[in-house]
Amino acid sequence: MAQKITPRADNYSQWYVDVVLQAKLADYSPVKGCMVIRPRGYALWERFQQVLDVMFKETGHQNAYFPMLIPDSFLRKEAEHVKGFSPELAVVTYGGGEKLEEPLIIRPTSETIIWSMYKKWIQSYRDLPILINQWANVVRWEKRTRLFLRTTEFLWQEGHTAHATREEAEEETLKMLMVYKKFAEEYMALPVLSGLKTESERFAGAVQTYAIEAMMQDKRALQAGTSHNLGQNFAKAFDVTYQTQSGSLEYVWATSWGVSTRLIGALIMAHSDDKGLVIPPKLAPTEVVIIPIYTNRNKAEVVGYAHKLYERLRKAHGVEIDEDDQNTPGWKFSEAELRGIPLRLEVGPRDMEKDQAILVRRDSGEKLPVASGEVPARVEALLEEIQNNLFHRALGFRKQNTFQVQDYTEFKRIMEGDGGFVEAFWCGSADCEARVKEDTKATIRLLPLGRDEKEAEGKTCLCCGAKARELVVFAKAY
Amino acid sequence: MAQKITPRADNYSQWYVDVVLQAKLADYSPVKGCMVIRPRGYALWERFQQVLDVMFKETGHQNAYFPMLIPDSFLRKEAEHVKGFSPELAVVTYGGGEKLEEPLIIRPTSETIIWSMYKKWIQSYRDLPILINQWANVVRWEKRTRLFLRTTEFLWQEGHTAHATREEAEEETLKMLMVYKKFAEEYMALPVLSGLKTESERFAGAVQTYAIEAMMQDKRALQAGTSHNLGQNFAKAFDVTYQTQSGSLEYVWATSWGVSTRLIGALIMAHSDDKGLVIPPKLAPTEVVIIPIYTNRNKAEVVGYAHKLYERLRKAHGVEIDEDDQNTPGWKFSEAELRGIPLRLEVGPRDMEKDQAILVRRDSGEKLPVASGEVPARVEALLEEIQNNLFHRALGFRKQNTFQVQDYTEFKRIMEGDGGFVEAFWCGSADCEARVKEDTKATIRLLPLGRDEKEAEGKTCLCCGAKARELVVFAKAY
Repeated sequence: MAQKITPRADNYSQWYVDVVLQAKLADYSPVKGCMVIRPRGYALWERFQQVLDVMFKETGHQNAYFPMLIPDSFLRKEAEHVKGFSPELAVVTYGGGEKLEEPLIIRPTSETIIWSMYKKWIQSYRDLPILINQWANVVRWEKRTRLFLRTTEFLWQEGHTAHATREEAEEETLKMLMVYKKFAEEYMALPVLSGLKTESERFAGAVQTYAIEAMMQDKRALQAGTSHNLGQNFAKAFDVTYQTQSGSLEYVWATSWGVSTRLIGALIMAHSDDKGLVIPPKLAPTEVVIIPIYTNRNKAEVVGYAHKLYERLRKAHGVEIDEDDQNTPGWKFSEAELRGIPLRLEVGPRDMEKDQAILVRRDSGEKLPVASGEVPARVEALLEEIQNNLFHRALGFRKQNTFQVQDYTEFKRIMEGDGGFVEAFWCGSADCEARVKEDTKATIRLLPLGRDEKEAEGKTCLCCGAKARELVVFAKAY
Repeated sequence: MAQKITPRADNYSQWYVDVVLQAKLADYSPVKGCMVIRPRGYALWERFQQVLDVMFKETGHQNAYFPMLIPDSFLRKEAEHVKGFSPELAVVTYGGGEKLEEPLIIRPTSETIIWSMYKKWIQSYRDLPILINQWANVVRWEKRTRLFLRTTEFLWQEGHTAHATREEAEEETLKMLMVYKKFAEEYMALPVLSGLKTESERFAGAVQTYAIEAMMQDKRALQAGTSHNLGQNFAKAFDVTYQTQSGSLEYVWATSWGVSTRLIGALIMAHSDDKGLVIPPKLAPTEVVIIPIYTNRNKAEVVGYAHKLYERLRKAHGVEIDEDDQNTPGWKFSEAELRGIPLRLEVGPRDMEKDQAILVRRDSGEKLPVASGEVPARVEALLEEIQNNLFHRALGFRKQNTFQVQDYTEFKRIMEGDGGFVEAFWCGSADCEARVKEDTKATIRLLPLGRDEKEAEGKTCLCCGAKARELVVFAKAY
């Protein structure tokens, strides 16, 4: 607390680093590009895992674990896959004191090792579908890293499913995209756009990549989760066929989908402020912190009163009581704000006299005196209100900073200025996509789902002016 | 189910492999020494994690995550540590297409990377203790591997704590040993001995290593968890000092402790039989499987009746209902036995007429007709009985196969014959320890805790006949 957080307005990047370090979510490590996730950051990841794991199991998936080390030759079996991941690989060349005959790659993702096993497990349509998820660490060598957002090693989950038909694989791909959208919006309070990636942004080895994209407070986009329809690419690379009900042999259809510790970065950048973290109640390891305000003379009574409130809350909520004599109430208030605890409950001698407490909202700073008997009900209601408020605040911000643009000069003006999401029409050519990127650093984040296909009729491409194929969303991205 | 499990009496090692593969707990992978943990095996690991994680948090620990890649020079900072782990290291020499200036080691254990961070986080006595646990994968290059028991990559948890005093570190070391003992005995139904390791079996870098040891059905010992008092060794290697309350500088005291997926191997080898797995109810992902027995004519009624029982059980228990028409009841019974589900509930048309069900215990095979209204209470009671029975069966087996021996010829006869645990007196010399190992392959598993120190008075060493220092337990071990 001795340090000061750089205000967002002064330097957004520095603000982010200050918040992560000072809230003790993570720390730089002596290993280049790798970070340490400290207990407070890991507690957040545990909440993410708990919620997502239930959602995965409710949609029929089971967890498993595959080796982290993948023979070099496996990655080479799918041409696009190896091309995409080659620049990012960490290679083990020695094991047990001896040079390895074949180098082993630390998984950057597990399609290849998993499909080598699916070959063993799949013979007939009866063996399908396989719906497996893995919680694991992966390594992708990164030149420029940022805490949580881009690190050489990161934690994630990767779903890998095998299906009998193209339709079933596509259904699974979209189902999991919607699971991610639900998690982002209902738990992270993070409104997201969902849609298809262009070919240039597609996962290496996929037929289609879908993603959810969120707007950060600096108006940049952050890709928060991806779901890939892999077609039969990996089944062909690993020769995985199955006997259909009618007795013919067919290649198996595949999907994969993942979210990572990057989501913690998204959470911070979407909601937090110049005082520190703001955590949505549904993901907050601690929802309420009780801070008794006392002198030496009245300590016993005030702390006793605070404990009664603590007891009433702790069955239903994650609640802490801060009765450390070494710190002042003011210090404790700031610390609770830095940590992003959704509600602070202050009780002093005067509150005790009035049989009340003061509830302070982290999202708005609003102070609310509440009769002690009503504390549990008000806490319940306020946590829900804060959760909703954070979502709607972020949604309002995104709407306010999303523009419909048809003119390239205006588009460039926006991207050179404050930025934002721009909905524009595009001809479908990779050349236009590349030119926009070169001119403005903005990329096509996605082709939104659920748009009327006809809306592009009669429209022209933002970049080249040719006949438009579809509406897309451009933004500068993390 | 087409395959047959090799009986234990014919070939215990093959029986173990058959059970693991046929119950689909794990599979061999194409990566030498690494295995795939399949969904049924991973579901067990998830139960282990859930229970242990609560126990760790109840004892004040928090989870965190440290980088998997450790600079080569870090391992070299603690002389004993590098000596112990050198032969087992996997080395990353290339990253992002370039040769690394310094090779990175995939963590075989994380003391070094963690203490490099503790140096940053610890200045004063106020920063202590640090009580951190990590759930992670580790790699130790192994020449001979066995599913779950010894694999090159495995999953584990590693606790790493930092303390102000020697006493506090010793207290922590023993506290976590007792957590492991409680987990083994109360959840795994696995009776364990707890005690100190000899110097030759000590963790590389530790001052003292404590362990819990269990007897498998082939009378071999299996080390099921270790807790190390690291003294100031790692604090000195990484120069981690703290300012005491009186203002002086002192090195920090350390512990580390871990259990791994090896425990799944221990669970299998302790309880399972020639029909397949036997899982203690407290760790069984599925506690009860309901198998309706019907013909085409009465299917609707029987399955409806089974579902009523299912609904009554599912709030309190992990319960499945197997109504797959493709398989016969006999096949389903065998499958439930193979999977080790503690209770099977059979209902056929005659049971339905009598308003009853047949409960079948996996541990004993006993069949118990139960009136349908009493099913929930009987299930509850039987699961507890099975849990207790498994523990006492294993304890009885260990007692029956534990011998007190003073004569070396008798000792060798036991170790050459059926084996077992042998309690014997030892002079304390590493030479005698090594000679016994050479003669018989038996090692000192531990110096039991809580023995009367005086009992060695007047006794002589099993091996050399010199004055005995203490009682130890010998066994052949996994």
